[in-house]
Amino acid sequence: MDITPPLRDMKFVLFDVLRGEQHYDSLNAEQEVGRELIDAILDEAARFASGELAPINAVGDRDGCKLIDGQVTTPAGFKEAYKLFAEGGWAGLSGETTYGGQGLPESLSVVVEDLFSQANIAWSMYPGLSRGAIEALEAHGSEEQKQTFLTKLLSGEWTGTMCLTEPHCGSDVGLLRTRAEAAADGTYRVSGTKIFISAGDHDMANNIVHLVLARLPDAPQGTRGVSLIIVPKFNLDGTRNGVSTGAIEEKMGIHGNATCVLNFDDATGYMVGEPNSGMRSMFTMMNGARLVVGLQGVALAEAAYQKSLSYARERLQMRSLSGPKQPDKPADPIIVHPDVRRMLLTQKALVEGGRALVYLGALTADRALHGADEEERALADERLDFLTPIIKGFLTEAGFESANLGVQVFGGHGFIWETGIEQHVRDARITTIYEGTTGIQGLDLLGRKVLMTQGKALLAFAQEINELANELPAELTDLAQPLLDLTAQWGEMTMSLGGKAMQNPDEVGAASVDYLMYCGYACLAFIWAKMAAEAHAQSAGQTEPDHYLAGKIATARFYFSRLLPRTAAHFAAINAGAEPLMTIEDAWFDHI
Amino acid sequence: MDITPPLRDMKFVLFDVLRGEQHYDSLNAEQEVGRELIDAILDEAARFASGELAPINAVGDRDGCKLIDGQVTTPAGFKEAYKLFAEGGWAGLSGETTYGGQGLPESLSVVVEDLFSQANIAWSMYPGLSRGAIEALEAHGSEEQKQTFLTKLLSGEWTGTMCLTEPHCGSDVGLLRTRAEAAADGTYRVSGTKIFISAGDHDMANNIVHLVLARLPDAPQGTRGVSLIIVPKFNLDGTRNGVSTGAIEEKMGIHGNATCVLNFDDATGYMVGEPNSGMRSMFTMMNGARLVVGLQGVALAEAAYQKSLSYARERLQMRSLSGPKQPDKPADPIIVHPDVRRMLLTQKALVEGGRALVYLGALTADRALHGADEEERALADERLDFLTPIIKGFLTEAGFESANLGVQVFGGHGFIWETGIEQHVRDARITTIYEGTTGIQGLDLLGRKVLMTQGKALLAFAQEINELANELPAELTDLAQPLLDLTAQWGEMTMSLGGKAMQNPDEVGAASVDYLMYCGYACLAFIWAKMAAEAHAQSAGQTEPDHYLAGKIATARFYFSRLLPRTAAHFAAINAGAEPLMTIEDAWFDHI
Repeated sequence: MDITPPLRDMKFVLFDVLRGEQHYDSLNAEQEVGRELIDAILDEAARFASGELAPINAVGDRDGCKLIDGQVTTPAGFKEAYKLFAEGGWAGLSGETTYGGQGLPESLSVVVEDLFSQANIAWSMYPGLSRGAIEALEAHGSEEQKQTFLTKLLSGEWTGTMCLTEPHCGSDVGLLRTRAEAAADGTYRVSGTKIFISAGDHDMANNIVHLVLARLPDAPQGTRGVSLIIVPKFNLDGTRNGVSTGAIEEKMGIHGNATCVLNFDDATGYMVGEPNSGMRSMFTMMNGARLVVGLQGVALAEAAYQKSLSYARERLQMRSLSGPKQPDKPADPIIVHPDVRRMLLTQKALVEGGRALVYLGALTADRALHGADEEERALADERLDFLTPIIKGFLTEAGFESANLGVQVFGGHGFIWETGIEQHVRDARITTIYEGTTGIQGLDLLGRKVLMTQGKALLAFAQEINELANELPAELTDLAQPLLDLTAQWGEMTMSLGGKAMQNPDEVGAASVDYLMYCGYACLAFIWAKMAAEAHAQSAGQTEPDHYLAGKIATARFYFSRLLPRTAAHFAAINAGAEPLMTIEDAWFDHI
Repeated sequence: MDITPPLRDMKFVLFDVLRGEQHYDSLNAEQEVGRELIDAILDEAARFASGELAPINAVGDRDGCKLIDGQVTTPAGFKEAYKLFAEGGWAGLSGETTYGGQGLPESLSVVVEDLFSQANIAWSMYPGLSRGAIEALEAHGSEEQKQTFLTKLLSGEWTGTMCLTEPHCGSDVGLLRTRAEAAADGTYRVSGTKIFISAGDHDMANNIVHLVLARLPDAPQGTRGVSLIIVPKFNLDGTRNGVSTGAIEEKMGIHGNATCVLNFDDATGYMVGEPNSGMRSMFTMMNGARLVVGLQGVALAEAAYQKSLSYARERLQMRSLSGPKQPDKPADPIIVHPDVRRMLLTQKALVEGGRALVYLGALTADRALHGADEEERALADERLDFLTPIIKGFLTEAGFESANLGVQVFGGHGFIWETGIEQHVRDARITTIYEGTTGIQGLDLLGRKVLMTQGKALLAFAQEINELANELPAELTDLAQPLLDLTAQWGEMTMSLGGKAMQNPDEVGAASVDYLMYCGYACLAFIWAKMAAEAHAQSAGQTEPDHYLAGKIATARFYFSRLLPRTAAHFAAINAGAEPLMTIEDAWFDHI
């Protein structure tokens, strides 16, 4: 079952809701970006996604990757699709022109990635990992490194990876043991084992640029002693470098992407930036990656929504409780049943709201890098810092819920591989884990992004929500009061949490994930009100009713009445505080 | 990673909280059941579960079933384990003694099934399906059918299936097309295709007794024209009957259980009960099966909880926010982190509360069948009708959440097959679907079990909750007011829903799943208060603190403060009514 690129929704969000044209005009970017160019890029990306990537999604899941004689083979068609991708210039879309990129704003890469991930997330992760390497090298690489490595990444001839995790060290990066020793020629010798390396080896490109976190012999303990080092799979003279694939993991989903154990054995590497400054470079990669993982949640939810919607229209089962809707058929299509609609609308609200939130994050990232002046860049940077854990943490949870609702709409048929929908659940399951689990996002949000900044970005965002609430047209005032109530509660709750956290730091961890989810629902409420206002404005000028716009406004109302109230449960859990968690002794967990 | 049978918790629930000894004494059962006998059964079942079933769980998932030359082969070890099961007399545990059973109450089969399902749900479904067939034949079979088929099912020589679903007909059983025509000798000729038949074929027993829903040529349309027919895989003379396995499904989980397409082609069958009375017989099977599926949710949650708890104690990652807890180690075990505790306690609260709710349902089923007098049986029957959709619908959703939290505790390692935890998520995913989806349970609960009975069983249950609230010891009065508030809100909400449903039947469907979830959390609040009261009473007499009892009371408080508030979100969604769902036109769902 194929995906149809939801270009109407993507363009509505990008151009109408988020005012993309003015946005791109205002940037200090390398290239002018007009509406026609963006439309052309999106249309071409949509063709590539549905023509090349969607057809190899199920086969990639079934066959997975193979490790034969130390070399990973990707599923049938993956290599050929990558060749077309590189030839099409997609790898360099938002790379610097000096090094062969097209110099377009980063947000356009995100929007294109939306299309690719809907069609085939496992494939999309290969170039997706390259984006992280590209961003790190653009920000922190030397001129020589850019000429050597960045050019190849931007042309798509080579791909990249992020090598962080080790067997004993995941979230706690500071524990890492991989060693890097300076050689006489200014290079480094890297030794150690990295695990869970996505796109860690494959047969799609001539070389792989591993960006490896490692520790120098004299480095300080913890994260302050971490360096980022480039280790190519093949040396620059074409010989094999000291890095080998020890194994590929058998896993729940994303079977088409090779998750590798990489063994580094005296491999030659090149220091990025200063020694011991690796965490800063890592966060450059990581923040972009977190945005993309949030997007993956949305993209998988989109794929599941399309499948379950079309199934709900075709599957005939039982009569509507309010009387037959298609009396000439043996039963009504299940989309007439209220509970099926509840599931479809939940998916629709999370997909469309999620997409708009990711795009908002991507445009904010543009402004943080290319805003007209320093003040704008600084403000955008604060906003982006605040939004990133919400986008990553909340939208992956929402994406997993949506994929599962898709399966539920299919009933028994949803559990069967052939239908294609359960793959989305298995693929989506990793998104709440990698690039920082939901728990890590919650701590980052509440601890670093809210309490440590005295809620600066939150207050600015809440103010924007209040302004929107006060400007809503008369026909949408039913959305205004809930927004105002929400920002009031959000602010008070945060203040109270700040006070409790000063007494007891465990209060932060105890509240963190519920706080993250609360913020996610709040952000989606803002986004949905914004979308409803835009849809309302556009409808006003039209004589024929536009189904898409009517659906937007109705989905906003659905969101406010049936999903936003989930904040009440999170609010209560946050208020319960750390005590119910922390007074429990270790042995009390047992019930054997 | 192995499962340790949680006998302490099982016995606490069965004997201390639910007063199992008095319960069994009070029944009009075939056999006397004392504490010693039950302890012996549980201990032996626990040995069988951890010794025979747990070791073949992962291999069953990896290798799955094979269909070769029309015959299904089960994974290595499945056949041998089944042989031991049959030899051990487990198949006939609660069967009638006249036909070779041991005559013990049905609830003991449920408790034993808890142990088996924790260890290996895919294997447990083979004898699990037999239980459904046994119950249907005991209730509705003729003496000859009992002598022929029931005896073989109770000895374990043969197994059973339930053949309901067809390609075009799942929840809507009335649409089924499988035909049955009377033959001159009083038997029937059955033709048609059934799909999703769990345990539909295998190599573990000599014969399989299919209980097939079919339609006679002159049958009324819909569910009133459905008959239940016994179709054995092999005829009584040993020849092959006209039933063949067309395919086995490739699916998300429960790989060790064969999910079959069965083709019936002029197969010889035997009518159970009167023609066209099949739905009644089906519900006899189905209600028992729904209880067991709810139990599967709990059992998988137990397995996941044990794995994630032991991982959380071993995995060292980051320091406690309130200062190092194990300074001699490179980091603290992750169980010190509040958010990891939140995940573990959520699992613990859902597992232990869920187990107690299933056992309550099972004891209620005992009383419905073997209660001392007719009034007791009728009251128990009403209570059971009310609890069954909650147990099936809510506890499978809770089980899936718990299994997913287990994966989340493992982080990246949770996504890897080798760890064994992601299997529980894939296995659990079917439980919210088969034997009636969560949506079907919601409709059954709100429509048939609550509104159609004017809330009779609900009112009786709410009264029992209020009585418990008023009797709680002083140390637990913090649990009392929430219970009283809950029953008040529950009652008012139900009344209001009843009024709305009279105006518009879609109101029932619109509220149904949120109503089901609300009731589930309410039932668990009752169960947790009851468990806390018992734990408190037992602790009072002890000099040494008992970790298990302390954990019970603390988990009850955790449940009340952090999970029960989820009712607020469901309450708001219920109150939103049908309008946000039903005013949306079909075309409005599109966003392409």
